[in-house]
Order: sequence, then C-alpha cells, then structure tokens
Amino acid sequence: MEKPAETTYEISDLIKRRWSPRAFTQVPVAAGQLHSIFEAARWAASSFNEQPWRFVVATQQEENTYQALLACLHESNREWAERAPVLILSVAKLNFDRNGKPNRHAHHDVGQAFANMAIEATHLGLAMHPMGGFDVDKAREGLAIPDDYDPVAMIAVGHPGDFDSLPDAFKTDELAPRTRNASKDFVYSGKFGEPMPFESRVKRALMGD
Amino acid sequence: MEKPAETTYEISDLIKRRWSPRAFTQVPVAAGQLHSIFEAARWAASSFNEQPWRFVVATQQEENTYQALLACLHESNREWAERAPVLILSVAKLNFDRNGKPNRHAHHDVGQAFANMAIEATHLGLAMHPMGGFDVDKAREGLAIPDDYDPVAMIAVGHPGDFDSLPDAFKTDELAPRTRNASKDFVYSGKFGEPMPFESRVKRALMGD
Repeated sequence: MEKPAETTYEISDLIKRRWSPRAFTQVPVAAGQLHSIFEAARWAASSFNEQPWRFVVATQQEENTYQALLACLHESNREWAERAPVLILSVAKLNFDRNGKPNRHAHHDVGQAFANMAIEATHLGLAMHPMGGFDVDKAREGLAIPDDYDPVAMIAVGHPGDFDSLPDAFKTDELAPRTRNASKDFVYSGKFGEPMPFESRVKRALMGD
Repeated sequence: MEKPAETTYEISDLIKRRWSPRAFTQVPVAAGQLHSIFEAARWAASSFNEQPWRFVVATQQEENTYQALLACLHESNREWAERAPVLILSVAKLNFDRNGKPNRHAHHDVGQAFANMAIEATHLGLAMHPMGGFDVDKAREGLAIPDDYDPVAMIAVGHPGDFDSLPDAFKTDELAPRTRNASKDFVYSGKFGEPMPFESRVKRALMGD
C-alpha cells in the first residue's frame, strides 16, 4: 500500500511517498537494508558535527531486545507495532563530546537523522513509523539508557502491508487522507505570524516577474 | 561545487549529495523553489501530526527581515552567511494545539522538517546550511518570537558556489573531507552501547545467510 502526499507544490518523489503506515508484512528487513538506513542517518547534518543520535535496534529474531522495546510502547501503539519486523529506539546524547556542555540541538539533530532514515527506507521499499507514545522512563530503565542521554522516539520498520491485516480499530486511520497545515500557516516573512505571500508570489512568477 | 558523502553502505543519491556549504553564488532562489522547499517540510512526520515547525524567511530583497536575521548570527557565521540569497529561522511551537501541554518532540520534529527541506533543496540544485551559532535571545526579540515558541536554527540557502568566493578563514573547512562516526559507534543491539554487529552481518550476507 502506498499513500503519496497530495502536494500543493512539486516535491521530490521520495519525500512525497514517505509515510508512516501501521500495517507491515511479515517479510524480514535484510541486514543490508538496515545498514543503508543507518548510513542515511549517519550523513545528516548536526550542530558542531556532534552527531548526537544513537539507536537501539532489534529484529523480531533478537527476541529479548525486541520484547524490551515493545514493552515500552503505549497499548494503542503496541497493538499494531507488535507485527513490525524491526523496532528501533532513537536516543539523543544531551551534552557535547567536545566540552560536556548541553547541546540544545540534540533532539533536533536526532530528528534530522530520523528523517533521513525514513527517506532511505522509502527508497528501499520499506517504511518507518515513529512513535512518541511510549513510556520514556520504562525505556530508560529497560534499555539501560544513561542519564546524559534521552530516549526520543520508538520506530517501527518493515515492508508496508495490507491494511486488512490490522486490528479493526486502526483501519479507519490507515485509510484516512493524509492532512497537513497550509504552508501560509507556518511560513512567515516580515515578522512572525505574517504569512509569506505564497499566492501572490505564484502569480508574479507566472507573469514572468 | 559538490561534496558527496563517502559512504560505507549504499544510500539514495539525494541524501548522499546533501551537504552544508558556506559558499553560495549570487543567483537568487526563485519563489517556486522556496515553495517546494517548504512543501517538503510540510510533509514531514510529527508527533500527533502537530507540525510544530514554523519558519521566518527573508530573501536579500526583503532587506529589513534579512538584516534582522543576519544580525542574530555569531560573527563566525555572519562572515560567510551574509552572501546567502536567503536566510531562514526555524522555530518550534513548544505546546500542543490540542491540549496546550508541552510537546517533547517539538525540536525533534522541526529537525525532521528541516532534513526534508535540505533534501528537497539538493533535488533543486540548491543547498542549505543550518547553524546553531546564533543569539537565541536576540532572535526571539528581533523577530518577535512568542514565549511558547523557541528559535531553533538559522539556515542559509542558495546555489552552492565556488569556495574561492569565501573569506580565507573558511576555505580550509570548505575543502576538508566530510567526516562522520562509524555506524557501530551509534547503532546498538542487545543493549545501549553494544554495537550492532555490522561487519559480521555483512559477511553472513555475503555467505548467503
């Protein structure tokens, strides 16, 4: 199943096709595919090239870690994510290696790395579903995350599957259209809250300005 | 100038080619290109589809805002970024629309949106350079960012240019090889800090396992 974004302006194919399904097939994710996904994370930008991203990964075959990750999820996520061939916990290193000071971009840069991974997964015919709905303290304890690191997001990975394989409660969400705010609601010029004039710019562009 | 990542494992072309140059040509960024870049941000994933990303954008023609953004940069960034045709401040909305509670993924999800923008810029023959080196308080004041939002990163945008156009102090950095930690240093299995066995997995894969 694919669910490409219905875009207002043209964007590149992989960004358009990336989405977060809940239904996955039982086809395993190959080791080489995981290597490429983490390689994509590796080349994200980061503040002072700190690369504050860390990942704890488990396939269904690595049962102890897989179950430890699954146990952290809120029930509403566990019900569908327990079929994902791979689970990942993303983790942020909170202080800089270079001087031990707090890195205010730690979570931001983990987000960059994850976005690269999701694009790469799309390229490989896979999909990733990031989840904020998990017990952070349980993840810290269950996965032995040190104090100066933060558990950030749980991620399900696999080949997108048929929505029919989902528990009934999730079928509606899986089939619902993808929605986003309009660009004018989050892109400002002049000052904060004042929309960039998307429409008039398009008109000017059409008029050869 | 291009500077593709020297990857250990295969990754998709746009992720490989994305990088953060300091040298930009004086060719303006077209309105349509900005539309596509923000459209790419629009389709990033976010916790509860909150879409906590906001952007204040200025081309060199929008002089007041451009100068207000430029004035926030640390001197070491301003010296090269003042030639960029477009400057952007990314901003995180800290509380959920749905219930006003803190969104612990706000910065993370702004990072996802930015990564999408950087990929789209690469697709368009442009490049983006995100900067943590700016005065957050000055940005909050100068761009009138409300209390429940955080200035996150300053971003220079343009067509990658010739490193010869840079002040001497930056030429070495611009030409230096891009470096990253090895995957085994940030991807763990079993428990935090225990590297995922990248090498042995590759060997097994080659042996048909």
